[in-house]
Formats: sequence, structure tokens, C-alpha cells
Amino acid sequence: MSGESDRTARVLAGDVRAGARLMRDLDDRRPDAMAELKQLYAHTGRAAVIGITGNPGVGKSTVVDGLIGAYRKQGLKVGVVAVDPTSPFTGGAILGDRIRMQQHALDDGVFIRSLATRGQLGGMSRSTFDVALVLDAMGYDIVLIETVGVGQDEIDVMRAAHTTVVITVPGLGDDIQAIKAGILEVADVLAVNKADREGADRAVRDLLHMLDLRDAEGGRRDVEIVKTIAAWGLREGSGMDDLLAAIAAHRERLASDPEGQSRAEARAAAHVIELVKGLLADRAARGLEQLGGMGEVARSVATRALDPYTAAEEIAAKV
Amino acid sequence: MSGESDRTARVLAGDVRAGARLMRDLDDRRPDAMAELKQLYAHTGRAAVIGITGNPGVGKSTVVDGLIGAYRKQGLKVGVVAVDPTSPFTGGAILGDRIRMQQHALDDGVFIRSLATRGQLGGMSRSTFDVALVLDAMGYDIVLIETVGVGQDEIDVMRAAHTTVVITVPGLGDDIQAIKAGILEVADVLAVNKADREGADRAVRDLLHMLDLRDAEGGRRDVEIVKTIAAWGLREGSGMDDLLAAIAAHRERLASDPEGQSRAEARAAAHVIELVKGLLADRAARGLEQLGGMGEVARSVATRALDPYTAAEEIAAKV
Repeated sequence: MSGESDRTARVLAGDVRAGARLMRDLDDRRPDAMAELKQLYAHTGRAAVIGITGNPGVGKSTVVDGLIGAYRKQGLKVGVVAVDPTSPFTGGAILGDRIRMQQHALDDGVFIRSLATRGQLGGMSRSTFDVALVLDAMGYDIVLIETVGVGQDEIDVMRAAHTTVVITVPGLGDDIQAIKAGILEVADVLAVNKADREGADRAVRDLLHMLDLRDAEGGRRDVEIVKTIAAWGLREGSGMDDLLAAIAAHRERLASDPEGQSRAEARAAAHVIELVKGLLADRAARGLEQLGGMGEVARSVATRALDPYTAAEEIAAKV
Repeated sequence: MSGESDRTARVLAGDVRAGARLMRDLDDRRPDAMAELKQLYAHTGRAAVIGITGNPGVGKSTVVDGLIGAYRKQGLKVGVVAVDPTSPFTGGAILGDRIRMQQHALDDGVFIRSLATRGQLGGMSRSTFDVALVLDAMGYDIVLIETVGVGQDEIDVMRAAHTTVVITVPGLGDDIQAIKAGILEVADVLAVNKADREGADRAVRDLLHMLDLRDAEGGRRDVEIVKTIAAWGLREGSGMDDLLAAIAAHRERLASDPEGQSRAEARAAAHVIELVKGLLADRAARGLEQLGGMGEVARSVATRALDPYTAAEEIAAKV
């Protein structure tokens, strides 16, 4: 048995060090790590993959912390993929959140993996799929994918989730309400967090109104709305059980519904497309090298000696 | 002279209908429209391309409205690319903003183009480059690129700008401050909008502190901070002149600095890379068709009869 397949066996046995190393090798895009994923794939599909997204400041990390605690109480193992598409130059609260979340690091039923790579070509979404797959293979029952924002990148990342929870808070302005419409498309469950604040009921009504609008446009889908009050370590939190129930109900609906199959296929398609993009990007990089690298091309385009469209065609022709 | 080159001449003469049609043909990815861009490219490089970004609710559209008014007072023609990477399912304030901004539609010195396409493969960034190029070729002196959020997508879009203005407001929480660190990387000018609110001076101090932190990490670059109070139609706005001066000062610094050249090359490189991605995505789509479309592949992957890594390699091999 080769070293790789030995590690594959350890990953499947839930060995944390083997899993962490495989994830690091995937980050480095080592071909042997990619080959390992092929072997692991047949052993996946058991975990419930739950995406958590929402605007900055809605308390995503606190909700994730609450969910970890609630699932652990049920005796389930929880893997977390924390996706941060902003720069490594983050700090303050987010770093603090990570540290607070690391309290779970002492619990071997919890595995937290941060993805901070700024992928050039859908790299974030691809990495999320890959890490979620490894966590699934390692035997984590629940895989939580937490994103930091609400852009296209986050919507792409959510394609890896079976159930997507969009978190909002009372009292957001119209501007943010409008933004949220974009993310409503991917919401299976809506959580109004900080529901002890004034305006929580109004926020629920607004969301119901937006869902009605969406239904009118033909996008009908059952979306449950729950109110939560998340707090670190669940000291004063509430609503977590409702959130768990809403997530479980969504999962059950999918299992007994043709939509479940079509969504599984859409997830598979999204994963394959991300991988194809990556393979093509690698080839484009090699094509560029053959043209003497981007430096020469960029200089010619910047001085307008060459137009970018012709330059791109020449590079693509080398791929 | 062919029909295309006739239109090219009209675009270069600033004909609004010809420009709008070219943009629409670019949306449809018509090869003849791409060919036209090659001809136009040599005539571009005169416009000042200014990116406007920031979190939802900071008043980006109002600032853009104020900038349009201020530049028009100087007799300059202004093109606007409004980039909204969320769904067409937007409404409320954003739609309202667009309508209010359309007051400028009566002014033939202003051209506003919204990009709402959700590109599969960096399409938003590519479209922004293309539309900014067409506006430049049409003779607009100023091209404003307004984005709706602060994700990776928006940072990519900002690669098309010469000068990037990041807008913030007083009183944002730590969470949002941390997010902003990501976007600080791309900021050339920082505007603290709604500066009549409590905490404006503190917001300025916080930003200075964050810039200091960044400088300590070796990312030193002059970034001017201005306070603005933007209001629709500049009725009660203030600080717009300071913002204009800060943008102009940044532009002058770039012109007299080797950084200006290296940034022009970085912009050119980013544009070429986006175009290469697009060309490869087209080829991947054709490769998929040869495999009988994604449906068959997705079904096999979803049932775990085929792993996504092997599927991706097979598709890439057909490209």
C-alpha cells in the first residue's frame, strides 16, 4: 500500500492530522492530493452540508458557534469551513471570532478549517467543495460552511451546501434589504438574528413580503423563517433549537422530493465546473509562460502597442 | 467601409446609440463586437476611470450622483458603469437610486450603463473593463465604476479603475471595520460619508490607524481621507470638492510616479486574464457539449458512479 492510500485510509478513519495534511496538500494543489480525492469521493455523501451566510455584522460566527454547540449536544461531529474571501489583512472582531471559536478546538468532535486564499479563478468555491468533501469522508456528520459576505463569491460558495441559512438582523436599511434579495435566491432557511432588538417582527414581515414577491416571479420554494438570539457559548442564546429544526425539516423535504435529486445534480455540476476552470487556468498559466510571461504582454497592452483582445486570443491559442 | 467599422467611427464620435448598441452586442458576446473593441482600443486611455465601492448602506449611489454633478459643473462628460453582481431580483432603494440617477439621462454629457449579468466566469469584471473601454473611446472624460458590495468580485471589478474611492460611514461595528481591511488594499482615496453623523472624527482616526497597520506590514501608499455629506442632487451635500481634489491629486501622483506605469500594466494584465478566462470558458462549454452536456455528467457524479475530479479531467481533455 502506497503512502497516499495509507493516508486515505487514515482520513476515512477520521484521523485529524491526516485530514489536515490532505487539506494543506490540496491548498498547494499537489496532484497526489487530487488523486486522493478521487478515492475518497465514493465514501462521501453522508454529511449534512449547511451553508451560513449574511451581511457583515449579523452575527454569523455567533450563530455558527451556537449551531456547533447544539449539534454537539446531539452527539454529532461537526466540521466547519470558514470562508473569508477578503485579504489575509483581516483582524479585529473576525480574528477574535476565530479565536473564540477555537474553544471548540479542545473538542475532538469539532474540526475548523479557515479558507483565506484569494483564488484567481473560482478558487474559493473549488476549495470549499474539496474541504467539505474531506470533512464528509472523515466522518463529520455536519459540515458548516460559513462565509463572510454576500457577494457573487459567497453565492458560488453556497453551491456546495445542501441547505443554506441566510442570517439577517432587525433594522437594516432599505439598501441592505435590496442587497439581500440577491441572496434570497439561495436561502432555504432565513434566520432573523438579534431578535431581541426592536423591529424583529417587522424584519420577519419584510422577509415574508420579499418571499411573496419572489414567488410571484415563479421562484416558489418553501423557506422557513426563524428568530434567533445567538451569543457566544450559548450563554444567553435562544432560537437555536428552532434553527436546527428548520434545517432538519429542509433536509427531510429534500430527501422525499424530486428537488433533492435535481439539487444534488446541480451541486455536482457546480463542483465539476469549478474543477474544469482550475484545470484550464493551470493551462492558461503555462500558455502565458510560453509567451514570456504576463510582464511583456502587459507592457505592450498598457502602451497600446497591442490590444488586450488579440493578446488574450494569442494566450488562449497556446493552451 | 463595412457596417462594423462604420459603427466604430460613430462610437468614436461619441454617438450614444452606437455606443449603447455596441455594449449590448458585447453582452451577447457577438464576435464582431469583440473585433470592434480591438479597433477602439488604440483610441482609449484618455478617460480618468474612477472606482467607487464600499459596504451596503454607506451611500455609494448618492456619492456617485454628487460626483456626476460636480464633474458636469467642470464641463466634463461622465460615463457611469453601475455594477450589481446580485440578482436581477433587486428592487427598493437600489432601483430607486437608479431611477433618481436617471435624472442625468436628460443630460447628454452623462451616460449610465448598469451591469447586472451574473457572469459564470469572472464575467462581471470582464464586462466592466469592456464597457469602461467603450465609454473611454466615446470621449467621456470621467468613467465612474460603482459597485454594490465589498466581496472578491468587487475587488476584481476595481482592477479596471485608475483611482479607487472606498466609502465608509461613521459608527460601523468592529465586524465591518475588519471586513473593510480587505478593501483597504485597493483604496486610493477614503471617503467618510454621512460625516454629519456622530463619530465621524473617530471613523477618520480608525481609518488612519488601519492605514498605519497596513504601512507597518509594508503596504505603504498615500491614501487621502476626506469627509463627505452626499445628498441627492447635491441639495445639501458637502465635501464633494474635497473628494474631487483628492481624486485629482491621486491621478497626478500616478502620472509622475513609476507606480503609475506599473499600475497601468497591472490593469492591462487583469484585463487580458479576464479575457483568457472567457475564451477558455467558451471552449469548456463546447467540450461539455461533446460529452453530451452537463446533465449526464452531473447525474453520474451525484450518484457517485463518477468522481468530479475524473469528470473535470475528461471535460478539460476535450477543450
